[in-house]
Amino acid sequence: MPDELSTALALRRHPERAVEDRAAALAVLDAGLVCHVGFVAGGRPWVIPTTYGREGDTLYLHGSPLSRTLRTLAGGVDVCVTITLLDGLVLARSAFSHSMNYRSVVVVGRAGEVTDGADKGAALRCIVEHVLPGRWDEVRPPTPKELSATVVLALALDHLSAKARSGAPLDAAGDRALPVWAGEVPMARSVGDPRPDPALIGDVPLPASVVTMMRAAAP
Amino acid sequence: MPDELSTALALRRHPERAVEDRAAALAVLDAGLVCHVGFVAGGRPWVIPTTYGREGDTLYLHGSPLSRTLRTLAGGVDVCVTITLLDGLVLARSAFSHSMNYRSVVVVGRAGEVTDGADKGAALRCIVEHVLPGRWDEVRPPTPKELSATVVLALALDHLSAKARSGAPLDAAGDRALPVWAGEVPMARSVGDPRPDPALIGDVPLPASVVTMMRAAAP
Repeated sequence: MPDELSTALALRRHPERAVEDRAAALAVLDAGLVCHVGFVAGGRPWVIPTTYGREGDTLYLHGSPLSRTLRTLAGGVDVCVTITLLDGLVLARSAFSHSMNYRSVVVVGRAGEVTDGADKGAALRCIVEHVLPGRWDEVRPPTPKELSATVVLALALDHLSAKARSGAPLDAAGDRALPVWAGEVPMARSVGDPRPDPALIGDVPLPASVVTMMRAAAP
Repeated sequence: MPDELSTALALRRHPERAVEDRAAALAVLDAGLVCHVGFVAGGRPWVIPTTYGREGDTLYLHGSPLSRTLRTLAGGVDVCVTITLLDGLVLARSAFSHSMNYRSVVVVGRAGEVTDGADKGAALRCIVEHVLPGRWDEVRPPTPKELSATVVLALALDHLSAKARSGAPLDAAGDRALPVWAGEVPMARSVGDPRPDPALIGDVPLPASVVTMMRAAAP
């Protein structure tokens, strides 16, 4: 990978911060559910949301939403994958100092299609387990036909960068005495009560995966 | 704008559906807080999160996070702006039929920098009011110096397309009798209790903008 990528991503020069940044970036990545995949097609940029999972230093993208375009790009495609977690509104005394609290990670590189059946099954498992840990073993695994109907892309996590903002607004000194309320309004992803499929047959209890997620999400 | 853009976005041929789709797409756009802006720089795709607002048929992007790159692209930049709202997990009986409920809108076009001071002020007001209606009139407006330090991009909403999924999982007929729990787990953006800036001077009450938002967000 060219050095200018690292420069563009503004990776830290200090190794100890680089390690810290990488761990922070991976934590943001692991906390998201949807990523936005950017690629170039027909000379134009495109950004498509999709699901993903991580196994070590590889990011797997559920590529089916992109498949019509990506299949025309043999040998892999340059992508930028961005994951953003909105943590709240930052309300300042001046319009100019308004902001958001957030965590985001940007991954750049060349994504390639996973074609081997066993590899693809493992990648799909990774994506399902990322979205809902424990789910894979509760459900019917994919058939070879289903696997071949699914597009999965793999992207090495060689070039990633995280940005974040947290905490109170930072008004200019001259504004701090203004009689204007300032502060944060926290935001997060909330999980509602599960809605059973009306077509469920018999009395099927909530699975352990959902019970665990609901417990973790409880206030 | 070239016709292939409309084709790529799969806009409906039926005018009555196109109207319906446009209204639905604008509703998704209006419900989001963060967009992902894709652009091409150095021959590579980049995707950056930022805030935005809409005034009629114009999308305004808070371009400051992108400014270093965008300022080098005189005369506007081709962008793809994607907004995604995650509405829940769709848990099926088979791994293959797992999905997400979501609403997303994709806008493509050429974004240009807003340079006139008055226009930029109006665009910033649009962005602040999008994030928190009523906030603009509560705070100190930007000075000319602050305005010139802010980058705002305008993008005509000429080419947009919405996609959405809702409802229960769609398992194959042969899977419906499997003793596996299936259904939806709704997800949404939740709003927490406001945290006043520790530097607030005196007893400043919560502003009407935040009170209104908290009421709207209450379960």
